[in-house]
Amino acid sequence: MFGIGSDDSNPSFECSAPCNNLGFLQKNNNLEEKISSFKERSSKDLLDNSDRDSRFRRTETDFSNLFARGNWPSYVHYGKYRPINQNYKHCVGILIIKNENIDMLQFLTLDLLPAKNGEEPTMQFLLEVVDILTNYVRKTFDRSTKVLDFHHPHQLLEGMEGFNLELSDQPESLEQILVDCRDTLKYGVRTGHPRFFNQLSTGLDIIGLAGEWLTSTANTNMFTYEIAPVFVLMEQLTLKKMREIIGWPDGEGDGIFSPGGAISNMYSVMTARYKFFPDVKTKGMTAAHRLVLFTSEHSHYSIKKASAALGFGTENLILLSTDERGRVIPADLEAKVIDAKARGCVPMFVNATAGSTVYGKYNIHSQGAWGGGLLMSRKHRHKLSGVERANSVTWNPHKMMGVPLQCSAILVRERGVLSGCNSMCAGYLFQPDKQYDVSYDTGDKAIQCGRHVDIFKFWLMWKAKGTIGFEHHIDKCLDLSHYLYTKIRDREGYQMVFEGEPQHTNVCFWYLPPGIRDMPDGQERRDRLHKVAPKIKALMMESGTTMVGYQPQGDKVNFFRMVISNPAATRSDIDFLTDEIERLGHDL
Amino acid sequence: MFGIGSDDSNPSFECSAPCNNLGFLQKNNNLEEKISSFKERSSKDLLDNSDRDSRFRRTETDFSNLFARGNWPSYVHYGKYRPINQNYKHCVGILIIKNENIDMLQFLTLDLLPAKNGEEPTMQFLLEVVDILTNYVRKTFDRSTKVLDFHHPHQLLEGMEGFNLELSDQPESLEQILVDCRDTLKYGVRTGHPRFFNQLSTGLDIIGLAGEWLTSTANTNMFTYEIAPVFVLMEQLTLKKMREIIGWPDGEGDGIFSPGGAISNMYSVMTARYKFFPDVKTKGMTAAHRLVLFTSEHSHYSIKKASAALGFGTENLILLSTDERGRVIPADLEAKVIDAKARGCVPMFVNATAGSTVYGKYNIHSQGAWGGGLLMSRKHRHKLSGVERANSVTWNPHKMMGVPLQCSAILVRERGVLSGCNSMCAGYLFQPDKQYDVSYDTGDKAIQCGRHVDIFKFWLMWKAKGTIGFEHHIDKCLDLSHYLYTKIRDREGYQMVFEGEPQHTNVCFWYLPPGIRDMPDGQERRDRLHKVAPKIKALMMESGTTMVGYQPQGDKVNFFRMVISNPAATRSDIDFLTDEIERLGHDL
Repeated sequence: MFGIGSDDSNPSFECSAPCNNLGFLQKNNNLEEKISSFKERSSKDLLDNSDRDSRFRRTETDFSNLFARGNWPSYVHYGKYRPINQNYKHCVGILIIKNENIDMLQFLTLDLLPAKNGEEPTMQFLLEVVDILTNYVRKTFDRSTKVLDFHHPHQLLEGMEGFNLELSDQPESLEQILVDCRDTLKYGVRTGHPRFFNQLSTGLDIIGLAGEWLTSTANTNMFTYEIAPVFVLMEQLTLKKMREIIGWPDGEGDGIFSPGGAISNMYSVMTARYKFFPDVKTKGMTAAHRLVLFTSEHSHYSIKKASAALGFGTENLILLSTDERGRVIPADLEAKVIDAKARGCVPMFVNATAGSTVYGKYNIHSQGAWGGGLLMSRKHRHKLSGVERANSVTWNPHKMMGVPLQCSAILVRERGVLSGCNSMCAGYLFQPDKQYDVSYDTGDKAIQCGRHVDIFKFWLMWKAKGTIGFEHHIDKCLDLSHYLYTKIRDREGYQMVFEGEPQHTNVCFWYLPPGIRDMPDGQERRDRLHKVAPKIKALMMESGTTMVGYQPQGDKVNFFRMVISNPAATRSDIDFLTDEIERLGHDL
Repeated sequence: MFGIGSDDSNPSFECSAPCNNLGFLQKNNNLEEKISSFKERSSKDLLDNSDRDSRFRRTETDFSNLFARGNWPSYVHYGKYRPINQNYKHCVGILIIKNENIDMLQFLTLDLLPAKNGEEPTMQFLLEVVDILTNYVRKTFDRSTKVLDFHHPHQLLEGMEGFNLELSDQPESLEQILVDCRDTLKYGVRTGHPRFFNQLSTGLDIIGLAGEWLTSTANTNMFTYEIAPVFVLMEQLTLKKMREIIGWPDGEGDGIFSPGGAISNMYSVMTARYKFFPDVKTKGMTAAHRLVLFTSEHSHYSIKKASAALGFGTENLILLSTDERGRVIPADLEAKVIDAKARGCVPMFVNATAGSTVYGKYNIHSQGAWGGGLLMSRKHRHKLSGVERANSVTWNPHKMMGVPLQCSAILVRERGVLSGCNSMCAGYLFQPDKQYDVSYDTGDKAIQCGRHVDIFKFWLMWKAKGTIGFEHHIDKCLDLSHYLYTKIRDREGYQMVFEGEPQHTNVCFWYLPPGIRDMPDGQERRDRLHKVAPKIKALMMESGTTMVGYQPQGDKVNFFRMVISNPAATRSDIDFLTDEIERLGHDL
């Protein structure tokens, strides 16, 4: 397609400038002008929101001639410059090069750092991205904005008005990259919107967001003090504080932030196994036959995943019966432990769910991915009473405490078990002859090697809110769920999934359209009711006004599971949700 | 300490304004002025770097009266306002409230979104954070900036000039939060600095950074299409592209992004076990006795961690001998497989290291966390020839390809194994009766439940660079390692750890100070040489000029492991490193 050192006699563009500077010099001339123009827009934007949307539709953007930097291999042979076709008309130069074997088309792509003179374009580009992001943040909190603009997978895959997900060999201009950023947000879901109730993790905390931006910029790794000194210490201090709040004496023990509650729960099973059967580490599960685990039938499925992954087998995870409200029945645990022993099995681990995923209940306590946040509230922490007797606790600040994803901690009461369980003493990372106290190199406790910095946003939020700030947030969410509960418990068309006030912010209920309300109880009614929540949810997503989860559970047909962890939510948003359910579901 | 509805007769501050507005109204009056001042500084900053450092030392900052929002529980009873003591002198209002049981001191903390009128302070705060971050980015690429400002753990724990890591009950002002952000970066390590060579993951890609900022802002979760439609599709398309590059027909197969190479490697063992012994999922490791795994004695320690965690036991991980350059000896694998069978063991899994962590070698290929990036280079991909015969491949774009942490993929050749292995069909997340094609709900393939969005930054970089951009980067890094190798192989005072040109960018060498060079080979020389690298590294970190790793390996005493993945590095940085090693090590 392209000749070597082409003799194309009709180039529409030629350039003899040194290629290193070609792309940049052309732009540099009017850089100051562009910066002023950008500043003007930003300033205007802060004071006047009227034309927010229009800015990125402008075609005179400055980024069409700019490209992310690609590095030049040293064997590049410089040839002639020419534009190839219309698609590349904005490129300031294109270079035909030759290496040992093949001819390649290369762009002059030396615009961003670490390119020479890349500082100004880099700053401009980042500020333009920030402009897109801050606009998104503003709109997220604006109730007149939709929660989502739903499209089916095939629609997005086919490409939406210039938003093409396919990857290609050739680079895109920074202008297109900015369009891609905007479109990625446009077709996504605003999980921070005051009317997004779909997940346990909702909300967009501004301090947490700033913390995550900083974390991305620092771009380091938690495995050693050497390359993450501040973050490693923040993790240590924060884990200690969390252990104090759990109630372990002097906050003693150990812990680590892990990539989510499922992995934290996996850690809890691993540490328990190591504590009682340390030989499993070296000899495998044959060193400890017939171990069994216990968990609530309502517990999170990650315990089941851990049983499969760690070699116990899901059949050796024994499910405990619960009462109507999802609380484990202690007598059932006792009976099942006795029964397992009689069958020659060895009970090793009891997972107690503090805040079950669907109902949000409390009983015995050790896994509090969802419920753990209640410990921060003097008013509600009694619901986790006894948690200090657990050997390990999973606690996800990214759920009830509103920390951006991901932020999950596994806390272990006994020091040494976590590192005993996982350490392999890799010489290339954890050298004993470093100049600092290497007990701060915590990476060998993890099943991961590289580990993302999840601590900073949480630490920063704690600094900014104080313990009392988290308490306020949690108390408010529980107040809101109380408001919803009292609103709908006796309201026509609603039926609660279980009796009594929820202990957490989970409110589980059926909405019964008028056409179902008077039907006699029976299979037909059940079948119709089962389809109501999915249908309302689909209509909700298509209209984009709000989002709430639904699911069946055991013999119960699909019901709504409302959860409140979003600090932006108010009573009016709760009212909006029920109005919307009634509006969309009335004629079903 | 504080009375209920206190009658304190000498308040130094009183206010009767409605508490909702109190904090804000005071500031709002001069908001426009402050915005202009901010714009002026930003603009100046873009054009003039001279006073970058001084700006945040100013004491007249606008944020001292601003606080992150704490939510008010609805039971708050409003009382009198007063400042309590000197520490709170900047607070615009303090409120004594009473709930059922206790008296609490509460701040007026209604400044950021979702607070009413929180938009402008939020934008100001975020722009101020961005200013800190863009300054950091600029300095990271500036060779006159240090790589790190080293402090010992006890120094940072004791507190550095107003940087206090401890968490407290009360909130800090946003001014202090900004100081905390600046200090967190100040005492950290610049992993993107052109002279940071300490880890396999180095560099700070601007597009990747922008992608990560956007990811944080979107703050969603990969488990369902429902709440991450765009990201789920990006992951699917990118994984397919990676499988095509590996060489699997039509890019068929499966895969998922995981929190790092260690977890990806764990997935590879789990999928292999499920493929050959699916009963292990339900019955545990007793369903498949005496399984053994094989890996290079130079392989990453995560394979050992996986053996322990998954219930195989580290003793059932058989280490394969390597040649002088770290390549597995195929005859050794064959002999050990035969031997294991003779002992009644069942060989299940062979881990082939594509790019060993220390030496960076290639042989048989399946785990290419580090080496995988070479597949992007037409010049170097032959070094991974045969990779398409592997059943699974670990490939970490966050290493050789320069994607910000974390970004690791496990790719599996056979469709269905990954979900078969891990799926548990949790009803509350993966409802079959959704309105869209639920095959896009990929969360049940994972051992995680919530999963961080690691794809976007990678997808955006691929868009911005094109495949050829990654190729350039990789070729350039290998050129640089070739430059280092040819520079030092015959240079006085250097000794290579193995003969011949490295296959990846890892260059392993000893530096011999003059006092050691003429010593006869023997224990004394070895003992002294063993201490050289740690000593130079310590001096390097204290002077903060550059960073490179060292370690012992087998019977080899501590040597330097130089790795190059940083797009900002040039030959002059390589020269700087060797000069620095010689300067710091000359008199040892």
